[in-house]
Amino acid sequence: MAEAASQDLLLAAAFVSDAQYNRNIPFKTSPEAVRLYYLYNHWIMRTATYFFIFLNLSLAVFEEPAVYPLPFLVTSVAEVLCLLVFFGRLTHFAKVTHRNVFWKDTKNICIMVAILLSLTDLAIYGVLRIYNVRSIRWSRIVRPIFLINFAESRQIRRAFRSIRNTLPEITYVFLLFMFSLLMFSLMALKLFGERNLQTAEGLPYFKNYLEIVFDLYVLVTTANSPDVMMPAFDFSSWYALFFIAFVIVNTYIFMSLFLAVVYNNYKKHLKNEIRKLAYMKHRKMIEAFNLLKEEGGAQFVVREARWKQLVKLVAPDISNSHRELLLHISDNEQKGFIDKKSFVQLADLLNIQVVTLKIRSHPLGQWMPGVYKSAVSRFLRSMVRHRGFVWTYDVIILINAIFIALDEESPYISYAEWVFLALYIIEILLKVYTYEPRAFFGKNQFWNWFDTLIIFAALTATILNTTLKSTTKYNSQQILDIVFILRVLRLIRIVDSIQRFRVIMNTLINIVPTMLTFGGLTLVVYCIFAIIGMELFHGKIQFFPANSNAPHALECGNPALKDSLFARGKYCKNNFNNFASSFIVLMELTVVNQWHDILSLLPLTPVILFANGFANVTVQPAKLYFIAFHIVMVIIIVNIFVSFILEAFFVEYSLEKSEVETAIEQKIQELGMGVQEDELQDEQLLDNMESAEHDSEGEGGTKPQSKGLVFKIASKRYRTVDALLQRMFEAEIPLEDEGPSFEEILNLSPTASVPSNLTSESAA
Amino acid sequence: MAEAASQDLLLAAAFVSDAQYNRNIPFKTSPEAVRLYYLYNHWIMRTATYFFIFLNLSLAVFEEPAVYPLPFLVTSVAEVLCLLVFFGRLTHFAKVTHRNVFWKDTKNICIMVAILLSLTDLAIYGVLRIYNVRSIRWSRIVRPIFLINFAESRQIRRAFRSIRNTLPEITYVFLLFMFSLLMFSLMALKLFGERNLQTAEGLPYFKNYLEIVFDLYVLVTTANSPDVMMPAFDFSSWYALFFIAFVIVNTYIFMSLFLAVVYNNYKKHLKNEIRKLAYMKHRKMIEAFNLLKEEGGAQFVVREARWKQLVKLVAPDISNSHRELLLHISDNEQKGFIDKKSFVQLADLLNIQVVTLKIRSHPLGQWMPGVYKSAVSRFLRSMVRHRGFVWTYDVIILINAIFIALDEESPYISYAEWVFLALYIIEILLKVYTYEPRAFFGKNQFWNWFDTLIIFAALTATILNTTLKSTTKYNSQQILDIVFILRVLRLIRIVDSIQRFRVIMNTLINIVPTMLTFGGLTLVVYCIFAIIGMELFHGKIQFFPANSNAPHALECGNPALKDSLFARGKYCKNNFNNFASSFIVLMELTVVNQWHDILSLLPLTPVILFANGFANVTVQPAKLYFIAFHIVMVIIIVNIFVSFILEAFFVEYSLEKSEVETAIEQKIQELGMGVQEDELQDEQLLDNMESAEHDSEGEGGTKPQSKGLVFKIASKRYRTVDALLQRMFEAEIPLEDEGPSFEEILNLSPTASVPSNLTSESAA
Repeated sequence: MAEAASQDLLLAAAFVSDAQYNRNIPFKTSPEAVRLYYLYNHWIMRTATYFFIFLNLSLAVFEEPAVYPLPFLVTSVAEVLCLLVFFGRLTHFAKVTHRNVFWKDTKNICIMVAILLSLTDLAIYGVLRIYNVRSIRWSRIVRPIFLINFAESRQIRRAFRSIRNTLPEITYVFLLFMFSLLMFSLMALKLFGERNLQTAEGLPYFKNYLEIVFDLYVLVTTANSPDVMMPAFDFSSWYALFFIAFVIVNTYIFMSLFLAVVYNNYKKHLKNEIRKLAYMKHRKMIEAFNLLKEEGGAQFVVREARWKQLVKLVAPDISNSHRELLLHISDNEQKGFIDKKSFVQLADLLNIQVVTLKIRSHPLGQWMPGVYKSAVSRFLRSMVRHRGFVWTYDVIILINAIFIALDEESPYISYAEWVFLALYIIEILLKVYTYEPRAFFGKNQFWNWFDTLIIFAALTATILNTTLKSTTKYNSQQILDIVFILRVLRLIRIVDSIQRFRVIMNTLINIVPTMLTFGGLTLVVYCIFAIIGMELFHGKIQFFPANSNAPHALECGNPALKDSLFARGKYCKNNFNNFASSFIVLMELTVVNQWHDILSLLPLTPVILFANGFANVTVQPAKLYFIAFHIVMVIIIVNIFVSFILEAFFVEYSLEKSEVETAIEQKIQELGMGVQEDELQDEQLLDNMESAEHDSEGEGGTKPQSKGLVFKIASKRYRTVDALLQRMFEAEIPLEDEGPSFEEILNLSPTASVPSNLTSESAA
Repeated sequence: MAEAASQDLLLAAAFVSDAQYNRNIPFKTSPEAVRLYYLYNHWIMRTATYFFIFLNLSLAVFEEPAVYPLPFLVTSVAEVLCLLVFFGRLTHFAKVTHRNVFWKDTKNICIMVAILLSLTDLAIYGVLRIYNVRSIRWSRIVRPIFLINFAESRQIRRAFRSIRNTLPEITYVFLLFMFSLLMFSLMALKLFGERNLQTAEGLPYFKNYLEIVFDLYVLVTTANSPDVMMPAFDFSSWYALFFIAFVIVNTYIFMSLFLAVVYNNYKKHLKNEIRKLAYMKHRKMIEAFNLLKEEGGAQFVVREARWKQLVKLVAPDISNSHRELLLHISDNEQKGFIDKKSFVQLADLLNIQVVTLKIRSHPLGQWMPGVYKSAVSRFLRSMVRHRGFVWTYDVIILINAIFIALDEESPYISYAEWVFLALYIIEILLKVYTYEPRAFFGKNQFWNWFDTLIIFAALTATILNTTLKSTTKYNSQQILDIVFILRVLRLIRIVDSIQRFRVIMNTLINIVPTMLTFGGLTLVVYCIFAIIGMELFHGKIQFFPANSNAPHALECGNPALKDSLFARGKYCKNNFNNFASSFIVLMELTVVNQWHDILSLLPLTPVILFANGFANVTVQPAKLYFIAFHIVMVIIIVNIFVSFILEAFFVEYSLEKSEVETAIEQKIQELGMGVQEDELQDEQLLDNMESAEHDSEGEGGTKPQSKGLVFKIASKRYRTVDALLQRMFEAEIPLEDEGPSFEEILNLSPTASVPSNLTSESAA
């Protein structure tokens, strides 16, 4: 009986934990499976999986063509190791879920196929290598599949799903845009084709239809903006009207239209996904409730003791007092049990960051009370707390900025750097002297940590550099670079002093985790395009240092580039010769400018599909590579990124505290343990804590945990990306008591606002 | 008594008309003032005002430096004429409004000051000219004030007001962005400044702080994207990380942030403006009601006869049957009078485009019934109505497109062109034969008009060209160009055949009028910057035709540009030598690409502010001109344009018919005179009309106007920009019965959702 109860508790904790982190794995409920499931979700296992995914992806850096070459044996052993780990992880997952669920899931099939493909390719390549036949490692483009399809990459997968759902709408606009492009190209051919005009490089201007289409496509991105217009414009000023009309229609209207369609659809589909998540969460909480429920009066409830065991299991790292606070919120009337409605809230409650501030007197005040409480010490501390102290240091930082901009060589200025370092260290020491050190370096004191780390890193690096210089008479360039950057980063503190900027900065910091999803998305797209690009363009362009004597050093090692704009602009290092270079070229293509120059490497492309005769046509297939990248990266992903930032800012600007947060805050205030973060500056907050400490003796707390403790909500900080997204659409997502069934949730269409048919069921 | 009644009617009609067109002029209510007010609003007066405003603006084309030079005497006489017209218009306005209202309005003061300034400047310039002293026509930059401040330019003024209100928020983000830019520049100075690197042109790289700031600002716009990075990247690949971080933070995040802030604030302020308009409209309708009301049972009402007189006065051009329809809607239960609530709707009712389709039998059917109703004729007509007919012509258009793309010189292809022209003409004739000609060329048959006009213009131009060629053996280039463009435009018809594209196209066509507001905004900004630019950079760069023998022809007439990228790229025609060239350069700057090349003309700027010694510093003030243009045009206006398109598309995609439209449609259906536009293709619609004609004989209409008539709503077409905007925020704007007073309306703040204090009052 006791064992069954503890197994139920474990299962319930798994449900609650899944609800908290929005995991959607339909695991088996047998005790062994639940234990395996705990292991599956353990942070070491997950970190290890990520590690091997990134190891697998980064193999491209060491494989031919390599940035840091390693023998084939090493990379292939590493790859086999990665694949083994992936296979192990997949097997583990298969043990956790039901068999039919496992085999129905395309994610798992994808991973298995990718593992098989990789192994096959590796074997073929290895065998061919022994016989010295050069072949292509074509399976390398399946590697990002592991990043997308392992269950941990929910956000990336969701983003991909949203993109896939957005595609039909984008396609219509894209076709219309292509139609407009083709029309304008036809007009351009008719208007300019027979004028025998020449471009600035003396090439024929607007003679070939496909080249016109490509040139005008580049004009849409504004990359060849005045150049493409100049020959016609020089011929007659009136022709400028053609290009103005083109830019207005295609660049301004159609590109805005793309953003509008992407934004609208992305938001619609994301809302649907988040609604699914919300239903799932609700459902899991009800399953957990059903496992723990006992009869209590007219309804089923969960007893307080059991609830505490559950929370200890789900969130072992939160403090006792924090748990008591949550209990007070859930069991509002202190009846000794928690009803269904309050229980369901638990997942949200756990997701809100409540900061426990322990009020302690300063350690110096305990060790040397005479000195610490003397008049001088009191004066010093009140001085540090004064606004003027912050302002003084803002002025010092500004003066520091001027000194940084001045010439480094003068000895006075390098001495001044020591003075500034000393001043900053004095500031930190004074603050630690005034405020309680453990509160000063609390988990949420981002700026304190930032300051201290930067200053000490700068101090260490400066000392290291001076030592090196005095002993070896040689400046270490790497260390100097780091010192320079740290010195400049220090100036960011100025921004923190101005309330208005602080709000914008905080918003930016808040959306960083979600931006990482786009980082993942970008990584996947870049990896695929980089690997294809390396196969197509590898070795066509070489980079030589400035004083190289190699033949064709000025033509990027390729005589075909003689006198080209590409070589003249010193773009030789923009090549696809290794993984890192490819990434940087793709980055430049994302930023879009000058991509027509980068396209100069097109004529060098190996003729894969066409015979040599069609000199004009052979270039076209390689052009498709660049156009495809532009469409995927700039038109779709960058627009989605912009949509996301727009939406996140609207939410951050407009939303107040959520319902659950309000409930927690109210409870904190009721219990008399609250501090309103928004009203107080951090410095003032710490003052307040000290004064609260003096007062509390008079009050005589009725609740034991209230003594020397305050809570505050780290408001508008979200632990998970999902929480932020859920917050975005909170107002628009209605929630019923039981919610729809799993199948209904998964089949929700974006157009149906609320699922029509709700089934109520109770698990034993 | 009768005279007083007719004066009341005139006054009420003025109120209703103001409400319909959202005019907000507080005119005097005396009979003479009302008559003057009618004259003031007459379309001839308004068109004349616009004509003189644009004449005044276009004087810049004829004044020194001129595109088409005219003697100073001519332009100055034209300017004095314009100023006189403006003064006359202002005097007229002063007679219409109350004196204190007139003098309180900053618009009027602005116009008067602008007239005075222009006259003074003209006089000084004229006198100095007589003594051969060259001076600057500085008053030319006040000319756009007339475009902004005349009462007719409501939309432009509103857009400017929204921009002004948006500025504080943008400023904060801009300061933060500048801070980030300065920080990165400082890092760049420290990292790269002492490496003695060189750019591709051999200039020192990242040596001077201000130049770094400028280069990195240009990098934010991506205009110098790989170039600015290459020297550092060539030195060490790791430095690419610096530029990647820079682009992510500044280009992607900050630029999105600008869009987010602009969008958010613009929407907020625009909503407030539109709310004011809605209240004003409501108020004016109530004033009109109060003038016409009579007692009718328990409430005040307007009698049917009086209502008809009013509508005749307000909208003299709508048909009798349309007026009857509106009466049926307003007087729903046919009580012979209209109550207050229905009366207030009138302004909205008048703004909805209801198309009256007269069902008439084909004229040929009346003239030659035997021939027209013969079996052959019937078969022909059913063939034309078949879907296959449209498809056939779509195929013909596609074949035509291929022929256009082929070489023009071959004689077969120029014969083919005649065949296509003949085919298109046959198509139009067949359609006119099948459908009723007056319905086919109805007001709302946009595509029919488009087709016919294009074909006949192409026919005329082709015949003209052939005649010219056969008589003078000389192709007129202008006519040929027009023929080419017309031929290609014909292809647009393909888009119209596909329902999905048609929706997007219609949305685009719908927002064209509103985009004109941005055209006005752009015109104002361009005018000001063009006039300043001409004063600063005039004559620095000359353009010579390709085969010119003039000295320095290759260096754009300026030895300082020898071997510069500017001259090498053949950019010489990008100069500020006249108004038209300036506009084109500003357009190129708006599109942003290569603006650093255009900046090559900076070193040529006259030294205005600094002594010759500071060679390095003198360039900076002129740089400010370009940065200012970028901030105003790209960061603010283009973002607002994008915001507007986003919003317009969201509305068009999501909104269904408005309440008033639904009411009208319902009434039309009730009266049995309706045709649902959305359900039917235009061709089918015309079929339907014919069959309805046959049926109606059996029915025996109870309402005389229903015979041979159908109505349809030209749905989702808005007569005025305001109507579209009002539609955008319709759901979010609550309307009370009486609404707040004028003062309250004007002082509405964007934060208050509903004015707190509503006063009810009744005008006598």
